[in-house]
Amino acid sequence: MAKELKELTSREENYSQWYNDLVLKAGLAEYSAVRGSMVIKPYGYAIWEKMQRALDDMFKETGHVNAYFPLFIPKSFFSREAKHVEGFAKECAVVTHYRLMNDGQGGVTVDPDAKLEEELVVRPTSETIIWNTYKGWIQSYRDLPILCNQWANVVRWEMRTRLFLRTAEFLWQEGHTAHETRQEAEEETLRMVNVYRDFAEGWMGVPVVVGHKSESERFAGAEDTLTIEALMQDGKALQSGTSHFLGQNFAKAFDVQFANREGKLQYVWATSWGVSTRLMGALIMAHSDNNGLVLPPKLAPIQVVLVPIYKGAEEHATVCGRLHEIADSLKQKGISVKVDDRDNVRSGFKFAEYELKGVPVRLALGPRDMASGTIELARRDTLSKEVVPQEGLADRIEALMDEIQRNIFAKALSFRESMTTVVDDYGEFKRLLDEKGGFLLAHWDGTPETEEAIKTETKATIRCIPLDAPYEEGKCIYTGKPSNRRVIFARSY
Amino acid sequence: MAKELKELTSREENYSQWYNDLVLKAGLAEYSAVRGSMVIKPYGYAIWEKMQRALDDMFKETGHVNAYFPLFIPKSFFSREAKHVEGFAKECAVVTHYRLMNDGQGGVTVDPDAKLEEELVVRPTSETIIWNTYKGWIQSYRDLPILCNQWANVVRWEMRTRLFLRTAEFLWQEGHTAHETRQEAEEETLRMVNVYRDFAEGWMGVPVVVGHKSESERFAGAEDTLTIEALMQDGKALQSGTSHFLGQNFAKAFDVQFANREGKLQYVWATSWGVSTRLMGALIMAHSDNNGLVLPPKLAPIQVVLVPIYKGAEEHATVCGRLHEIADSLKQKGISVKVDDRDNVRSGFKFAEYELKGVPVRLALGPRDMASGTIELARRDTLSKEVVPQEGLADRIEALMDEIQRNIFAKALSFRESMTTVVDDYGEFKRLLDEKGGFLLAHWDGTPETEEAIKTETKATIRCIPLDAPYEEGKCIYTGKPSNRRVIFARSY
Repeated sequence: MAKELKELTSREENYSQWYNDLVLKAGLAEYSAVRGSMVIKPYGYAIWEKMQRALDDMFKETGHVNAYFPLFIPKSFFSREAKHVEGFAKECAVVTHYRLMNDGQGGVTVDPDAKLEEELVVRPTSETIIWNTYKGWIQSYRDLPILCNQWANVVRWEMRTRLFLRTAEFLWQEGHTAHETRQEAEEETLRMVNVYRDFAEGWMGVPVVVGHKSESERFAGAEDTLTIEALMQDGKALQSGTSHFLGQNFAKAFDVQFANREGKLQYVWATSWGVSTRLMGALIMAHSDNNGLVLPPKLAPIQVVLVPIYKGAEEHATVCGRLHEIADSLKQKGISVKVDDRDNVRSGFKFAEYELKGVPVRLALGPRDMASGTIELARRDTLSKEVVPQEGLADRIEALMDEIQRNIFAKALSFRESMTTVVDDYGEFKRLLDEKGGFLLAHWDGTPETEEAIKTETKATIRCIPLDAPYEEGKCIYTGKPSNRRVIFARSY
Repeated sequence: MAKELKELTSREENYSQWYNDLVLKAGLAEYSAVRGSMVIKPYGYAIWEKMQRALDDMFKETGHVNAYFPLFIPKSFFSREAKHVEGFAKECAVVTHYRLMNDGQGGVTVDPDAKLEEELVVRPTSETIIWNTYKGWIQSYRDLPILCNQWANVVRWEMRTRLFLRTAEFLWQEGHTAHETRQEAEEETLRMVNVYRDFAEGWMGVPVVVGHKSESERFAGAEDTLTIEALMQDGKALQSGTSHFLGQNFAKAFDVQFANREGKLQYVWATSWGVSTRLMGALIMAHSDNNGLVLPPKLAPIQVVLVPIYKGAEEHATVCGRLHEIADSLKQKGISVKVDDRDNVRSGFKFAEYELKGVPVRLALGPRDMASGTIELARRDTLSKEVVPQEGLADRIEALMDEIQRNIFAKALSFRESMTTVVDDYGEFKRLLDEKGGFLLAHWDGTPETEEAIKTETKATIRCIPLDAPYEEGKCIYTGKPSNRRVIFARSY
C-alpha cells in the first residue's frame, strides 16, 4: 500500500493523472475489457449506494415513486422529437441481431438470419420510451400528476472517456413527470434541481450554483434546463445534475393528451431530471488531496477505523479487545466502524491505506494509551492528530462527524469563493482562464453566436445563468452589447 | 375499479389469463413497445424494492459486497467456456453499431460507417466479463475470497414471453464469488441457496424445496446447480432461484490462477447465484385469488389501508380525522399505512381496489364505530371481517401482521403438501400429471436419456433431487432400473 501510495501522482504535477491514479488506487473503479465501460469496484459502489439511498429518500419525500422502463428503444421513437434525435443519434449503441451461432472454428459469429426488423437503441435517456408508455396511462386530469423515477444504466457512445466523469455506460436515475399545467411542471423542475442542490451541499459537501443553461447547452428536447454547477480543485467546472422543463414537446411527439377539468383535450406538460455516477467524480475531485480521498462522513462507507499499536501477540489481543469495545460504543451511535486487527500488516501501512480511502476518522490505540485511558484521534480532512481521553469518546466522535461534514463543505465553499472572479475585460477574462481558472462572472449579450465565439477562442462555456443573479446593467464582455445580468463562464469537464 | 375487477378472469376458468389480468389490473407491470420487454409499474416496483432490500441485507450479513460490471460483453468472451456459449448464444441481443444518422426522409437509420470491430453482446449473465475482471484482482490466496454481488438488468431473447416469468429483459441480482478451495466454494453454493430458501419462505411466504438440478437442467458452465423450487396454485412448479458451483471452469477459461499457501499456482474455485423479477411471478401465483393479489405483510408496500364510511362533508372530516390518528399510532409501530380519504370514490370501490392490490389489512370506520369506539377490521388473506375495539388496535394489528405472514406461508405449505404425491407406477404418474399436477416423488435411474424420454412423453421435468431426500431403494418409474432416492418431477413454468 505504501508502495502504491508513492505512485499516486501529485495534484500539482498532473491533476488529470492524479485523479486517475486515485480512482484506481483507492479501489473505486477501473476500465473494463469493453471500450469506455467501467467496472465500479466494491468500495466505489458502496459510496454510490449511499448516494442512491439518500437521493431515493429525498425523491420519495417529495412524492415520487420508482418504476422500471425497458433498456431498448425502437429506433423510430427517436425521430419523433426532432431536437432529441439530433442530440442523441450520434452516440447510440444499436442492437441489430438477436442470436449468435457457431462460426465452425470454435468461436461464435452473429447469425445473419437473426436480424431484427427494426433496430433497437440501447437507451441513452428514456424520454421516448416513457412518453410512449405514459400515453396509455393518461386519459384525464385525474391521472395527473405522474411522478416517476427510475434507477438504471444508460449508454452514450463517448469517444473520449474518463472514469466516472464520462463513460460509455453509466448508472443514473432519471425522473420523468407529467403534469396538468405549465406552472406545475415548472415548479417541479425547480423543486428537483433544489433537491440536487441540497444533496450536493448537504451530503457531498460540494457547494453548487443553481442556474439556467443557455439555449445551446440545453437538453435536447427541453424548453429550459436547470443545472447545478460545481467547481473542482483544478479550477474547472463540473455539471453535476440537471432538471429539464420539457414543455409539451414529448407529449406532442407521442400524442399524449388528457381531458382537462373543462373536459377539453390538451397536451400534457413534462419534466425530466437526472444525476449519475458522474457525482462520484465530483465528490473525488472536490475534496481529495495527495494522500488520497477525503470523504464527507455522510457518504463514507467506513466512518471510523480503529488501528491497534502493539508488540507481540499478547499485546495485540489486549489492545484489539479494547478497540472492539470502543467500536461497539460507536456502533450504538449509528457510526459505521472497522477494527483493522490484521497482525501481518504494519500500522504505518494501515494509516496510509485508510488515508487513501478517505476514512474520516482514525483511532489508534497502543499500550501506553491503555494505561493512561487515552487514544490517538486523527482527522482525514485536516490531517491533524490529537490524544484524547477514552471517556466520552463516542459523544466526541458523534459531534466530530458533523464538524467534519461541515468543515469539508466550508473548505470547498471558501475555495470556490476564492476562485470566483467578477470580470469586465475580455483580455483579463482570457488571462484568468489560463492562469487561474474558476468561475468568471461576466456580462453576455444573450446570443448563441457570442457564446460560440467565446467558446472557440477560450474553451470556456456558459456554465449557467444563476437563478439568484441580481439585475445589473452592463456590457457584453465580447461584443459590448447591453446585458442586464452576469452569467458564469468556466472551462469544464 | 369494480368494473375492472369484474374483468379479472377467474383462476378456475383460465389460470393463465387470470395471472395476466391480475398483473395488469393490480398495476404491477405491462408489456412495452419492445417485443418481450416489460414496464414494471410503480406498485410492482415497490414490491420488488422491498424484495431487493431484504435480499441485499441478507447478502451483506453473509459477508458480500455490491459492485457493478459492464452491460456489454465482447462476443469472443462467450466462446471461452464451451458449455456456457452453447447455453446462451441462441438468445443474445447483439450490438453491432454505435451511431445512427439521418435517413434523409425525417427518420434515422444505422450509420454503416459506425460498425464495431467486435460485436458486443448485451449480458444474459455476467460470468465471462466478471472472470475476465477477476483475473486482475487475484494474485495470491490473500486476495481470496471475493464475495461480490451485482443488481442489474440482463437480456435473454426469449421467443415466448410472460410478464415477470419470462421476459427478454429482466432485473436480477447475480452473485459471483471466488475461492481458494473446492470445499469453500461448495459451502458458499449451499449457503446462498439457503439464503434464497429463507427469503422465499420467511418473506414471500412461499415454501420451497431445495435440491440439486439434474445434469441436463444445470446452468451452462456449472458443475452443480442448486435450486429452490416452488409450487404454484395451478400445480405447476416454478424454479425461483439458483446457486451454482462452477468448479474451476471459468477460472480456466479466463486463466485466473493464484499463488496458494504453499506458493504454488492453481486455478480459483467459483460460484454464482441469482434471483430475478421472476420472484414477482412466484409471489403472485402462490397466494392470489379471484379478488386479486394477496401480499404477505413483509412485502406489502401498504400494510394497512384505512377507509372512511360517511355521509356528507362534515362526517367525512370527522371520520377521516380519527382515521389519521389511528394511522399515526400504526406508523409508530413501523407499519406502513394509507388513509384513503378520497371523497369522490365510493367505499365499495375502495374495498375492491385494495383487495385487488393485496393490502393485508383494511380498516373501515363509520359514525356508528365512532360512537361505540370500535372499527371494522378485514383481513385480505382470509377475507374475514370483524368489529374490534379501537383501544389496543395498534398492538392487535402489529400481532396480526405476524399472524397473516405465518398464515399465508402455512396455507401455501399445506397446499403443496396436498399436491405432493409419492408415485411408483408410470401410468399413475401420467394420470396425476394430467388430472392433478403438483410435485411427483418418483424413482429415476439417474440417466439423461430417461429424463428426456419422460419429458417428451409427459412434459414433466425433474425439478430437483431434494437435498433432504432420504436413502430409499426403488426402481425407476420409467425403466425399472435401480434407484436409491426419489426425485421431484413436475410440469413447470
